[in-house]
Amino acid sequence: MAAFEFQLEAQDGKARAARMTTPHGIVQTPLFMPVGTVGAVKAIMPEQLAASGVKILLANAYHLLLRPGIERVRRLGGLRRFMNWKGAILTDSGGFQIMSLSKMVKIDEDGASFRSHIDGTLHRLTPEKCAEIQCALGSDIQMQLDECVAWPARENRAEEAMARSLRWAARARDAFINSPQRREGQALFGIAQGGVYPSLRRASAEALCEMGFDGYAIGGLAVGEGQEMMLQTLAETLPHLPENAPRYLMGVGTPSDLLEAVRLGVDMFDCVLPAREARHGHVYLGAARVNLRNAAFAEDAAPLDAKSDCPASSGYSRAYLHHLLKIGEPLAATLLTWHNMDNFQKLMRRARQAIMEGRYESYCQRLLSGETLL
Amino acid sequence: MAAFEFQLEAQDGKARAARMTTPHGIVQTPLFMPVGTVGAVKAIMPEQLAASGVKILLANAYHLLLRPGIERVRRLGGLRRFMNWKGAILTDSGGFQIMSLSKMVKIDEDGASFRSHIDGTLHRLTPEKCAEIQCALGSDIQMQLDECVAWPARENRAEEAMARSLRWAARARDAFINSPQRREGQALFGIAQGGVYPSLRRASAEALCEMGFDGYAIGGLAVGEGQEMMLQTLAETLPHLPENAPRYLMGVGTPSDLLEAVRLGVDMFDCVLPAREARHGHVYLGAARVNLRNAAFAEDAAPLDAKSDCPASSGYSRAYLHHLLKIGEPLAATLLTWHNMDNFQKLMRRARQAIMEGRYESYCQRLLSGETLL
Repeated sequence: MAAFEFQLEAQDGKARAARMTTPHGIVQTPLFMPVGTVGAVKAIMPEQLAASGVKILLANAYHLLLRPGIERVRRLGGLRRFMNWKGAILTDSGGFQIMSLSKMVKIDEDGASFRSHIDGTLHRLTPEKCAEIQCALGSDIQMQLDECVAWPARENRAEEAMARSLRWAARARDAFINSPQRREGQALFGIAQGGVYPSLRRASAEALCEMGFDGYAIGGLAVGEGQEMMLQTLAETLPHLPENAPRYLMGVGTPSDLLEAVRLGVDMFDCVLPAREARHGHVYLGAARVNLRNAAFAEDAAPLDAKSDCPASSGYSRAYLHHLLKIGEPLAATLLTWHNMDNFQKLMRRARQAIMEGRYESYCQRLLSGETLL
Repeated sequence: MAAFEFQLEAQDGKARAARMTTPHGIVQTPLFMPVGTVGAVKAIMPEQLAASGVKILLANAYHLLLRPGIERVRRLGGLRRFMNWKGAILTDSGGFQIMSLSKMVKIDEDGASFRSHIDGTLHRLTPEKCAEIQCALGSDIQMQLDECVAWPARENRAEEAMARSLRWAARARDAFINSPQRREGQALFGIAQGGVYPSLRRASAEALCEMGFDGYAIGGLAVGEGQEMMLQTLAETLPHLPENAPRYLMGVGTPSDLLEAVRLGVDMFDCVLPAREARHGHVYLGAARVNLRNAAFAEDAAPLDAKSDCPASSGYSRAYLHHLLKIGEPLAATLLTWHNMDNFQKLMRRARQAIMEGRYESYCQRLLSGETLL
């Protein structure tokens, strides 16, 4: 099996097009990963995601630890087999979920203890345990355990968590390298923290680079600071990350967030947004968001996108989708999730094409000005 | 466009194999129609039904009248286009829904007035209006408006409703024949009523035959009388229906119901059962029902049916489906609905094959004895 590889293919301003080689396929960037939190992307079949060009999914070690349990997934052949997913998988370590979901969190230098948000059972994660868990799941790309702080955080609190995340990064790296369950080609990404403080972000990025990871994530953003401050923090962090490794902005975001962050040099994204919005009746046409529950669509015979090769986008009228939403029909979630996922994949594929052809700026402008036709 | 045609192809005892020609395709019997109540089969895409061999769906004129309204469906190109369904459609007239769902029902000789179970709005259906509505929807097979009585019904009440249903049958027939919206090849079925009273059933069947319909339904069964009484009533009704026309047992049922009724000479069925059971975690393996929520499946690495060509049946382990049900993941409904629908289609296709080959009795016995392998 090939080693994990990242190869830059084109650059347009700071925007990058690259390819990553994982144990389960080559993936092209910029890319957006649908989120299969508990081992499933809500309301959509993996075959449908694959048909829309998805090559890599995200799943959460935290959620799988609680249900159905890591050992069970391992016994059932690993996460890819469990989910019936033929592509690659990135797993998140749980740092963010511990902060945002669980109860009675106690963080010490060794790791984090917390109670399940489902049934109150007590759990403990350390950087080593997290690496072991993700190896057991069979992740193609795993994330270090990090300490996330809630927004807003004062500088000394952000520094404390950033510094601890760095110490955990080093331990995760050792555990990953020495794991007997690790397979050739699997990758570990470090996570840069530091809130919205440029000097902390720089220190975090530089220290991670010195340790050396297969890729670098920017964590702790899109937690309430707003797009402007997020992009500013990104712009101050990215120059301190190596050119020849993937850069992954975690938990982001809207099409506008994606387009702007790609412009700054980000390669990878994940977010529950397109699926969650779909379940609420919101669809994306290009970068524009439309509420299909609006009465204006009750008689609209046009499909979401007549020219799309996605069956959910081209096969059903807006009036029909509006009707399904009004009656609470579960098929609506499937069709709108598929459409949104397909749209996000197209946004990234066409961003890549634009970067390769040196016209990313105009592509970005067209979409941000509301042009729906990709 | 071809006229509606029904052609018997084989008989094995009383069990029949036939083909019907509709304006939107040839369908083979015995057949089971998935129910797309409000213009969608819950949680499953029409492409997935078609992949499982479904050629004809049922939809409810009553539900579509309430939401989104018949005129809207007509303006949007008719029900098939509205639903993105390429096959044939049978619509139910609403007689059963008026009795079972709506409020403040007033039935007089001319028709039925009732209040919507959704928003309390007042509606009125007559046999003529019902025929007109179903023509507007573009149904390939439409049903007469009938009067259904709740179980149990005394004989005089059953007789009254049966006699009125016959008078309404005659009016539906006239309205259908004279409808300017009717298209070549569209069919109208009469509905035999009469509760569990053999003499009423016989009178109803004979009177309908005399009027002449494209097909004959048996209504008012599977409403609480139990399988034994249902089959007994069927056995007393079917001999009075013509050989050379389809016989449709409405709202039935379990695999066992289907197998037994086919044995008595029924050609067509519809029921919400396989979809509803799927949403509750119950799957059919052959004629046997299994509760996937049972803890026994938590570590079962086998798919529902490894040899199936249905992706939902063969692509996912029982342990995974169990997990999806436990976490309340909407994908579970899609996968289990597809599996159940596929299983019902296979039950009927293989029943047909068995009839053609003169071995229906042994096929039936094997399945009823719990053999899961079709």
